[in-house]
Amino acid sequence: MPQTEKNGDTLKRSTKTITIKKALKLSCGVSLEQHDLVYETYGHLNKAKNNAILICHALSGSHHAAGKDDNGNIGWWDNYIGPNKAIDTNKFCVVSLTNIGSCFGSTGPNTINPKTGKFWATDFPTLHVKDWVNSQKMLMDAIQIKGWIAVIGGSLGGMQVMEWSVLYPNLIKNSVIIAAALKLSAQNIAFNEIARRSIKSDENFKNGDYLNLGLNPSKGLALARMVGHITYLSDDILGRKFGRSTKNVQFESQADENSEFEIASYLNYQGDKFKKSFDANSYILITQMLDMFNFEGDSKSNKQPFKDAKCKFLVISFTSDWRFSPECSNQIVQKLMDTNKRVTYLKIESDKGHDSFLLPDERYENGLRVFLNRALEEFEALNSD
Amino acid sequence: MPQTEKNGDTLKRSTKTITIKKALKLSCGVSLEQHDLVYETYGHLNKAKNNAILICHALSGSHHAAGKDDNGNIGWWDNYIGPNKAIDTNKFCVVSLTNIGSCFGSTGPNTINPKTGKFWATDFPTLHVKDWVNSQKMLMDAIQIKGWIAVIGGSLGGMQVMEWSVLYPNLIKNSVIIAAALKLSAQNIAFNEIARRSIKSDENFKNGDYLNLGLNPSKGLALARMVGHITYLSDDILGRKFGRSTKNVQFESQADENSEFEIASYLNYQGDKFKKSFDANSYILITQMLDMFNFEGDSKSNKQPFKDAKCKFLVISFTSDWRFSPECSNQIVQKLMDTNKRVTYLKIESDKGHDSFLLPDERYENGLRVFLNRALEEFEALNSD
Repeated sequence: MPQTEKNGDTLKRSTKTITIKKALKLSCGVSLEQHDLVYETYGHLNKAKNNAILICHALSGSHHAAGKDDNGNIGWWDNYIGPNKAIDTNKFCVVSLTNIGSCFGSTGPNTINPKTGKFWATDFPTLHVKDWVNSQKMLMDAIQIKGWIAVIGGSLGGMQVMEWSVLYPNLIKNSVIIAAALKLSAQNIAFNEIARRSIKSDENFKNGDYLNLGLNPSKGLALARMVGHITYLSDDILGRKFGRSTKNVQFESQADENSEFEIASYLNYQGDKFKKSFDANSYILITQMLDMFNFEGDSKSNKQPFKDAKCKFLVISFTSDWRFSPECSNQIVQKLMDTNKRVTYLKIESDKGHDSFLLPDERYENGLRVFLNRALEEFEALNSD
Repeated sequence: MPQTEKNGDTLKRSTKTITIKKALKLSCGVSLEQHDLVYETYGHLNKAKNNAILICHALSGSHHAAGKDDNGNIGWWDNYIGPNKAIDTNKFCVVSLTNIGSCFGSTGPNTINPKTGKFWATDFPTLHVKDWVNSQKMLMDAIQIKGWIAVIGGSLGGMQVMEWSVLYPNLIKNSVIIAAALKLSAQNIAFNEIARRSIKSDENFKNGDYLNLGLNPSKGLALARMVGHITYLSDDILGRKFGRSTKNVQFESQADENSEFEIASYLNYQGDKFKKSFDANSYILITQMLDMFNFEGDSKSNKQPFKDAKCKFLVISFTSDWRFSPECSNQIVQKLMDTNKRVTYLKIESDKGHDSFLLPDERYENGLRVFLNRALEEFEALNSD
């Protein structure tokens, strides 16, 4: 990969796998004696090792957040991470990992369980968002980072940010919570349940043991992704992008029962692409994490979830996001204000639904950039005192 | 079945099957030489045979719209059809049929194709909403009804009403179009595509030939229904009905990975119930009818779809319906106004989503009742002139 000096225009990207040899005690009670984490870093860690930003991925994300990997694939958040981008790798050292339980090289259902010599598959323990944060803390220690100037994540990534702010309040200066929620709604859970049932209904699923049998429940996984994909997009953008256009005919009036609507073709394409890259057990495991996440607690508990947090917060939502709507972000902001935290809330006008958090938008970029630049200034001012 | 005199309190219900022996030329070019229709009637047809109302069913509806059938099942619109109800069977003779292509006894994919002696299955021709209306017209003639004082339908039913108003403008005095749309949005089509792919992904589907092989793609059909079911309900009502409650534990904080959220359990139940009652090929066929329906035509065609209509219109929508939103009904109303038609528009406050059109609501009931009573008065005034 090309490498340039600091303040250059080319991304400095490095991909590594680390084995965390310390036991990770999970919320479910099980301990992972050791676990592998694949991670990428972008930019330079300064001498004080305190200009580091952690990026937390969402349901289908991975360590590969920025730049091109060896296969030419561009990272999932390349729009925002890079030299002179909103998360400026000329200023910050950005760390992005694949969390345990997912399927891009870190320990998860599609890796080998050392105790059995077989794929973990459904023997992989149930995970909670806290477990990811505790594993990320171990990575932080292992790569000798002293703390994060910011932890940033969208969707499920935002949930990890919330947990970071209270589990390790002294190790995080700033939190950026994007298109997230304190907990899922019944409708969110319903869509996840359909996705899981799609996978489990596939005859190749074999109660989750497909990898050990050399099979892949790809039809079910494709369907699961299609269900998810609709909910990431707004009705507006679907209408604008596809409308009622049909393939191979100029006007809809010329269409017949053999003409496929472009939206159908697009969704089928998305499903088929996904089934080759993602692991079905990981999909089930991670959607369950989403469902179980409840930062607010029972309505009877009157919990003040952010009470222990010390960092500053930037909360961002998108107007057309119906999966995690601005109302969900409002609730996060309200909980922060209830315990007198320092919070900035940015609601972005967008017609692109939940997917907006991945897509270029000037106001969103500027908001992130200004917040992070100020974070750096304050930090430097503090250190020069 | 109990039968009472006119103006009684007990529903007079009759179920019949008729064979239409005249060829039905379908929009796709194929002709059905003859076809069976199962239909129910409620109330008395007057001597002039002009107090008849036609009810058009939606995706999963049937001829059994009101009262209890021999198995004790209550009709799908029993809330609205009956003695002294909004569609008052003491005043009107109400006709409800199972349309061709569906699966409750009328000719469709789950009946025998006389030419082959096998189930029609995927050999059943593609249908358009117009074809249903033409078949309904044949039923009307066969049972010697001269015309409809009103044609009423919700969702896909409303699309049939629109077609009636222009295909047979002299045979229909009033139209009631409930929770419908001039055409589906890309998002609607996307959900239907997922439903169809769910069915086709089932290993028992066998390219649609499952009935001839003694199989049922029940897992796929259940999934298809679950996808549909979420879209019929609003996020609000899901939240209020289920919230994040889990089965078998009092508080969510006591839940673990084995606790199922009640919404998941409810959806699974709905899916499992549906797979026993509906035919998969019919589901595919009818969702395709929905997708292909386009009363507005290409945007370039500048069509005035209601130009030939002569009847009065009542258009009804529900605020929380995100499948066919009030905006869709607004577009219908606008098209009616563009060609100077007589239209009343009723937008009902409801938190129950698309399903609202089936559920009791006082304002909705009164609106329907007033509209139909006025229809009767005007008709009687006209006849006494």
